[in-house]
Amino acid sequence: MYEMTIQLQTDSKVRLYEQIYRHIKQEIIEGKLLAGERLPSTRSLADYLQVARSTVDEAYGQLCDEGYIEACPYRGYFVCAVEEWLQAPMQDVDERVENAVRRPQGVGDNGRGASDTFRDEIYESDTRTRSWQVDFSPYAIDMSAFPMSVWKKLSRKVLTEAEVDLFAKGDARGDLGLRRSISRYIHSARGVECTPDQVIVGAGNEYLLMLLEKILGGNLRIAMENPTYERSYRIFHSFEYEVVTVPMDDSGMIVEELKKTKADVAYVMPSHQFPTGTVMPIGRRMELLNWANGAEGRYLIEDDYDSEFRYRGKPIPALQASDKQGKVIYIGTFSKAIAPAIRVSFMVLPPVLLEKYHRECGFYSCTVSRIDQRILEEFIRDGYFERHLNKMRKIYRAKHDLLMDSLKTMRKSFDISGENAGLHLLLTSKTEREEKWLREAAAAVGVKVYGLSDSVVDGEDIPHNGTVLLGFGGLDEAAIRQGVELLKQAWYK
Amino acid sequence: MYEMTIQLQTDSKVRLYEQIYRHIKQEIIEGKLLAGERLPSTRSLADYLQVARSTVDEAYGQLCDEGYIEACPYRGYFVCAVEEWLQAPMQDVDERVENAVRRPQGVGDNGRGASDTFRDEIYESDTRTRSWQVDFSPYAIDMSAFPMSVWKKLSRKVLTEAEVDLFAKGDARGDLGLRRSISRYIHSARGVECTPDQVIVGAGNEYLLMLLEKILGGNLRIAMENPTYERSYRIFHSFEYEVVTVPMDDSGMIVEELKKTKADVAYVMPSHQFPTGTVMPIGRRMELLNWANGAEGRYLIEDDYDSEFRYRGKPIPALQASDKQGKVIYIGTFSKAIAPAIRVSFMVLPPVLLEKYHRECGFYSCTVSRIDQRILEEFIRDGYFERHLNKMRKIYRAKHDLLMDSLKTMRKSFDISGENAGLHLLLTSKTEREEKWLREAAAAVGVKVYGLSDSVVDGEDIPHNGTVLLGFGGLDEAAIRQGVELLKQAWYK
Repeated sequence: MYEMTIQLQTDSKVRLYEQIYRHIKQEIIEGKLLAGERLPSTRSLADYLQVARSTVDEAYGQLCDEGYIEACPYRGYFVCAVEEWLQAPMQDVDERVENAVRRPQGVGDNGRGASDTFRDEIYESDTRTRSWQVDFSPYAIDMSAFPMSVWKKLSRKVLTEAEVDLFAKGDARGDLGLRRSISRYIHSARGVECTPDQVIVGAGNEYLLMLLEKILGGNLRIAMENPTYERSYRIFHSFEYEVVTVPMDDSGMIVEELKKTKADVAYVMPSHQFPTGTVMPIGRRMELLNWANGAEGRYLIEDDYDSEFRYRGKPIPALQASDKQGKVIYIGTFSKAIAPAIRVSFMVLPPVLLEKYHRECGFYSCTVSRIDQRILEEFIRDGYFERHLNKMRKIYRAKHDLLMDSLKTMRKSFDISGENAGLHLLLTSKTEREEKWLREAAAAVGVKVYGLSDSVVDGEDIPHNGTVLLGFGGLDEAAIRQGVELLKQAWYK
Repeated sequence: MYEMTIQLQTDSKVRLYEQIYRHIKQEIIEGKLLAGERLPSTRSLADYLQVARSTVDEAYGQLCDEGYIEACPYRGYFVCAVEEWLQAPMQDVDERVENAVRRPQGVGDNGRGASDTFRDEIYESDTRTRSWQVDFSPYAIDMSAFPMSVWKKLSRKVLTEAEVDLFAKGDARGDLGLRRSISRYIHSARGVECTPDQVIVGAGNEYLLMLLEKILGGNLRIAMENPTYERSYRIFHSFEYEVVTVPMDDSGMIVEELKKTKADVAYVMPSHQFPTGTVMPIGRRMELLNWANGAEGRYLIEDDYDSEFRYRGKPIPALQASDKQGKVIYIGTFSKAIAPAIRVSFMVLPPVLLEKYHRECGFYSCTVSRIDQRILEEFIRDGYFERHLNKMRKIYRAKHDLLMDSLKTMRKSFDISGENAGLHLLLTSKTEREEKWLREAAAAVGVKVYGLSDSVVDGEDIPHNGTVLLGFGGLDEAAIRQGVELLKQAWYK
């Protein structure tokens, strides 16, 4: 049995569960804990460390979520098999994060930043049309908490201070100040490793993907999971790309299947796959990175669209954080976390592609006005963004918990999945109910639920039991309660 | 001899020269005046109509500029040969314009609009680097007249009035209000025929061209004049397009040469070609339109980048105004007329492409924030834009006239061309001076002039005598005077 050598620091700012989580993760990365090894039971480790059992539960839970260990019912926790670690030993992401947070703001052009990021493309919620009593749109967000007064205040301040040069042409990548704010943010919140130089700001994910198409060059084969985010599929499809789909399992894209496709680029959402909510475990991430390292010109596009909102454990670090070879193109957006009309997304280019960008695409002017850039820069830099996120996390968590609670009595006939993060969850019928029936029965009582099949692309027929998506971001508490009541009437009549 | 049947209306708001110009143009379009026919001399027509000779001069001058008639030294004015007129008789653009202007504002969704438009992509002027005493950049604009206080006032107003829904997602084409303002403006100022439905707003020309690539589909052959606007060339080159260049003569792209290329799309700047300043006469326009009508899938991209600023006669109508078959994609921008950081460009799609856009590209969200859209909408709608343009026209005209005046003593050794519009003119050495020598001699005294060869693309070697571009948009009067003095020292030493 593995012996835990950790020294817990009770006077640290770092919470106890996190100290345990970090220690074990580091041991696994350094090979001191090997695949298949069993961890102490939560009770025995809690006894040994003199902490509450729930503390160890939390640490183990996070390690499970990230795929470092797995729980086998009645047998305990075991270290997962992770494909060979990459050359450079992985630095502890969380320590870097702390350093970054402690570092004084505004210093150095090598600044690093904090982030989770978010789906850029929010479909118009059908609620707008007023034809639904309750619309469980997975794309809707809560705009009632938009930080209107702060945004207006900052806008006025930026306008008042604006000199005429702010209306002259700026850096094609976006102004340095904003790129610095972003890189600092995504570093501290998502573990993304980059300098502000590598950040390209653009008006929305679609634009950035278009630009990326120019950087990568045409005639590529791009692999996507199936089901996947349909809008991204349509975008790639409108490119001169051959889009191929790759089956997924509980860990996300199956790398053996990816290899068969001979794809050049794979598009993934490792922190929270849409629509399934799958979190890609570290083992699968390594497999993907090793695939990308296997040939020149292979890249991974990481769409980190809504990792901000997680209801269990700490945020899952970005895939980019584990990338030592410059193979990950990281894309994030502020549309989901702030508001859809804040048309600011960004991508982080690995050095090779950054060079190509400068050589071949540097003449594409930045698509975001410099006034807007400045407002967002100050919004992030002065801590408003973090406060706003904390507020939104509370709001979404309350909605999430209420929805989960309301669904309790339905769990006999439905499995719930994808519920640990994001703004929607999945309900899968345990009986013979098909998706179509579920949607139509819901529609008959005025409730809109979304089908998993909407996200199945490429004309394939992915076998799935009747599964529907329930989004809660755009609904208030009364609507969630009412919606679930109506669903019960519809589905249990 | 052709008999003029015009009835001048001395009480009309329409100026006399314009009444004469319109009448003759209409006679030509209707075939009452035939190619090769001689017009009365300006003196005899002035006598006959009882107007000043300068009035007739002005009318003939505008007709010459637009290519309806031509002047033969010592012989008089003759009607030009214009390739067959298109099926629908051309409505008089100017009458339409007047109707549009008279129509009450804010009425109907079929609204038309006023415009000239402008180069989107202003290169950073080298003046910024302070290494030049005087930089005659053809890309620089005068930012000192930026309507800062109005812009700030409108921004504050929009922000104060903004409800939370202005931060939710808007129409993918841009909000209707702005599209209405734009379509009204380009109709009244440029004669562009379109409904607001056909207008697509985007953050810069580059983005719109990228979107257009998706709408048109890939693997096209696109023809450009040579020399041409280098940035557009680079953009098309970065697409999956085959870019071919077509020689030009004094009227612009030579259509016989275009035909040889088997191109699908031709990119032109008919109102003011960059860099040559050529205005495409109506005859060449008709040839181009007939070429486009000759096969399905052929289109003309009209980049109407700076037609706002014209120093002689009325603005030249847009090519789109003569297009009866839906073959012209019209692109304009506010970057040049207002400020580069106002990242708003727009394109007008013909119906067939609009349908394709809705079918295949409607999911690309608008790249301009809705706040910025609203500010610009009010800026145009409330007349600020027109006032700003009038102010800029005066400013640029003064600079233009000063530059022309300063260059007077150099006209023995240099031809001046392209001087009737835009923010630059061309100087061509009458002696054996080569472009390289002119640039280097200028550089030796701290003056930056731009070479015509910078705009020669495709690795071709267009024969041209030593020609340099002198831009004046970004220079104040003292700099223009100083710059020309230095050039004289450099070139006549």
